[in-house]
Amino acid sequence: MSRRTHRPRRVAAAVRQLPWQRVHNPYPPVEVLSADQVEAVIDAALTVLETKGFRYLEDESRSMLLAAGAEPAGPERMLRLDRGLVREQLRHAPRGFPLRARNPGRDLWIGDNEIVFVSVGGPAFCSDLDRGRRPGTYAEHCEFLKLVQSLNIIHQEGGGGFEAMDLPPESRHLDLYLAQLTLLDKNAQAYALGRERTLDCLEMTAIALGTTREQMEASPAVLAIINTNSPMQLDVPMTEAIIELARHRQVACITPFTLAGSMSPATLAGTLAQQTAEVLAVVTLSQIVRPGAPVMYGSFASNVDMQSGAPALGTPEYARMALASGQIARRLGLPFRSSNTTTSNCVDAQSAYESQMSVWSSILAHTNLLNHAAGWLEGGLTASFEKLVVDAEMLQMMVETLRPIVLSDDEFALDAIAEVPPGGHHFGTAHTLARYETAFYQPLLSDRQNFERWQEGGSKDAAMRANEIWKQLLKDYEKPANDPAVEEALSSYVEKRKRAIAARLR
Amino acid sequence: MSRRTHRPRRVAAAVRQLPWQRVHNPYPPVEVLSADQVEAVIDAALTVLETKGFRYLEDESRSMLLAAGAEPAGPERMLRLDRGLVREQLRHAPRGFPLRARNPGRDLWIGDNEIVFVSVGGPAFCSDLDRGRRPGTYAEHCEFLKLVQSLNIIHQEGGGGFEAMDLPPESRHLDLYLAQLTLLDKNAQAYALGRERTLDCLEMTAIALGTTREQMEASPAVLAIINTNSPMQLDVPMTEAIIELARHRQVACITPFTLAGSMSPATLAGTLAQQTAEVLAVVTLSQIVRPGAPVMYGSFASNVDMQSGAPALGTPEYARMALASGQIARRLGLPFRSSNTTTSNCVDAQSAYESQMSVWSSILAHTNLLNHAAGWLEGGLTASFEKLVVDAEMLQMMVETLRPIVLSDDEFALDAIAEVPPGGHHFGTAHTLARYETAFYQPLLSDRQNFERWQEGGSKDAAMRANEIWKQLLKDYEKPANDPAVEEALSSYVEKRKRAIAARLR
Repeated sequence: MSRRTHRPRRVAAAVRQLPWQRVHNPYPPVEVLSADQVEAVIDAALTVLETKGFRYLEDESRSMLLAAGAEPAGPERMLRLDRGLVREQLRHAPRGFPLRARNPGRDLWIGDNEIVFVSVGGPAFCSDLDRGRRPGTYAEHCEFLKLVQSLNIIHQEGGGGFEAMDLPPESRHLDLYLAQLTLLDKNAQAYALGRERTLDCLEMTAIALGTTREQMEASPAVLAIINTNSPMQLDVPMTEAIIELARHRQVACITPFTLAGSMSPATLAGTLAQQTAEVLAVVTLSQIVRPGAPVMYGSFASNVDMQSGAPALGTPEYARMALASGQIARRLGLPFRSSNTTTSNCVDAQSAYESQMSVWSSILAHTNLLNHAAGWLEGGLTASFEKLVVDAEMLQMMVETLRPIVLSDDEFALDAIAEVPPGGHHFGTAHTLARYETAFYQPLLSDRQNFERWQEGGSKDAAMRANEIWKQLLKDYEKPANDPAVEEALSSYVEKRKRAIAARLR
Repeated sequence: MSRRTHRPRRVAAAVRQLPWQRVHNPYPPVEVLSADQVEAVIDAALTVLETKGFRYLEDESRSMLLAAGAEPAGPERMLRLDRGLVREQLRHAPRGFPLRARNPGRDLWIGDNEIVFVSVGGPAFCSDLDRGRRPGTYAEHCEFLKLVQSLNIIHQEGGGGFEAMDLPPESRHLDLYLAQLTLLDKNAQAYALGRERTLDCLEMTAIALGTTREQMEASPAVLAIINTNSPMQLDVPMTEAIIELARHRQVACITPFTLAGSMSPATLAGTLAQQTAEVLAVVTLSQIVRPGAPVMYGSFASNVDMQSGAPALGTPEYARMALASGQIARRLGLPFRSSNTTTSNCVDAQSAYESQMSVWSSILAHTNLLNHAAGWLEGGLTASFEKLVVDAEMLQMMVETLRPIVLSDDEFALDAIAEVPPGGHHFGTAHTLARYETAFYQPLLSDRQNFERWQEGGSKDAAMRANEIWKQLLKDYEKPANDPAVEEALSSYVEKRKRAIAARLR
């Protein structure tokens, strides 16, 4: 090998990253509960539903549940669900299902041992090192979506990286969908706040896929997060969304927001029981609306800081409940969702170790959907351009960690071991040279320069390097090929709907 | 509860941390190799030892090995070890053993499901945010040791956080031992470079424990890291150390330094085979010196960056090899050692995610000794005062993560769930109030303030907060109670030995 081939090959300024790939976890899940303990949690959840009940704030859902056998409970709009009813409805829910993307090469599977990484969704603010933390604009929001498209390790866009505060809230979702369906060819989550926003997503997705809402029922293309209003209730907009999703056989990822000590008891057992009760209350509704509607068991169980009442994320409690929740979801036969979380206010060591706590525990729990997997900061209040890159690096590393070790004569390399003298080195062996380009994971962000070179290069920490990387990705972004007729149809739909919304508000 | 009790109790400025505790892993290890694959690695290692052989650079060790049945191999000072010989010697090595500390309340166990966290050992430099990166002094070195003593989560001192560059190298180890045995009451690793330094440690430890070298044989009190000079050789100073450790039944943690692509083949299988061969070569020697001498299977298997040749640490390859190495060690019946590593040059997100990759994989691999668990930076060239605190937080979080979830009627809290109205909160329930102080892990370092408060407080990132914490710990440091006679005996020993060394050098 000449010295020349030994040098790094710098392919222009392009950012080096792993190719797009679906991810499977080849190892058994880590189990922190015994089988009996899993049953005990589920039993406690069913007990809660049949003794205390659950509050369904929306009228149509209550009527449907009453017709199916639920019973009115004491307080206003509470219904008690018999465990037989819950178990009967649960039986209809599928264990796994496909999820279509605009680009068929990016179709997903939700369930089994597959893991889907989702970019952050929903923050009120955005931030980067240059412009600081601020309410974002639509233009910045589109920048963020372009990065989500460009980072191969992200499988699904999370329903809007952050709110576009320069757009009117009543029609903002239409602009979001238009951006999702033209700037990305990956699957993107719906913004399912109420019936209209959900139906707009179904309609526009059908246009983008060149299909109809009816045809989409055979193979879902829309996934939305359905949050309960913990403890123990479901509000009107979320109910409307889950009814429409179920009716059209699209995916509802049912996720209670149980911060132990505030929205649930200050114990892990109580929080797991309540979370499970809430998921089952909504699963039951979904299956009554349409048996077989695809649903997921979502966990966002963490704790509050008992001294301040502030949310505490990426904590040991979060990790333990993620592991337990995965077991409960599997026992119920539902795909499992968890998240990548941190409370840190900047892209520092804390943001990384809390995210790692979340990601490792989620992967070991066999999560099927890692929501907010990239870009989340500040307890979910901010989408960070730099954190997006840091998280992408961490997700790439996790995927590589899941690769089984190959043991073969060639990989054992006993000839190479025999060839190199004691105390010598393997740099120049034929065995090493044959693997020069592909032997090991090549990082997206991590720096391995020695201290002196790193200092000469400006002592850039991971956040500063991430800043350079997202700017380069933005420069290199290429819009996926769109059929102009489809793009026009999407724009007309948005215009038409905006006029209708404006007319109604006048 | 009055508002008053709801406020954080600030106990002066003392740093809040978990109490000293031994740590057990209650879950089964994660296994990335099948049982057959583990056997295949061991078989490959034994094949290397009986076909290529291993180079023992020191003469006495070669004589002992030849007398026991090893055969001279072609190149200079190489010996071939028959697999029967290796297996026979391996059989003597114990599966676990105690390790005494100066304070009996801090005695350790090496093996089974116990995990020992060790502070960083051996860097050439030290660094902190105020004074930057620099060669350290003995005074700074003593500061670092005081912090290691103060951080309860650290079980063992790692043999000198960094070199005291203002002291002469030939007697520096004596000052180190004096500091270890007076500033700490935890077990501390030896600085086992050669026979004299090893014997000085045994002698001084016996003085500190009020015992004799002979009595110490029944219950070891000294542990040293024995690095092979990968590939496939053991140098003179390390051989002298392992002979003395074995002779006196003290612990040798045998750790090849196999960076795949440089000191071992550019494959994981080849690196695992070579690492195992090197460990077995040294285990065989140790058991020939004294059957039953306590030894450990150490792994430091990572990879080089193939583009630059630089070490790459905390990588996916590191994590995969830690998991596999743990399996191999268990199959061989030896306690397992791994490390907390990073190549980052500063206490940033990279330093945290690479450390987390190392720590999670080590814990899942059932490591028994997590070396460099706190304070390591820059590929091991620097001991960082701030990283020490960041790592202590990560270790605390890991210990809390390993706590099994308690499921009992009281923990399920169904009464509390019934008591709180839908959409209400659990802050004020009797169930929550009863757990107010103890419900959840309280962080050492992590910040959970909202963005505005955090900004008002100076926008301090994790490294800046860690800087404040170690200064506070240093202020609060209390020297453990020492018998003045013992302290005097230690000082006299050091003086006597320094005079002898000086006389010899003249």
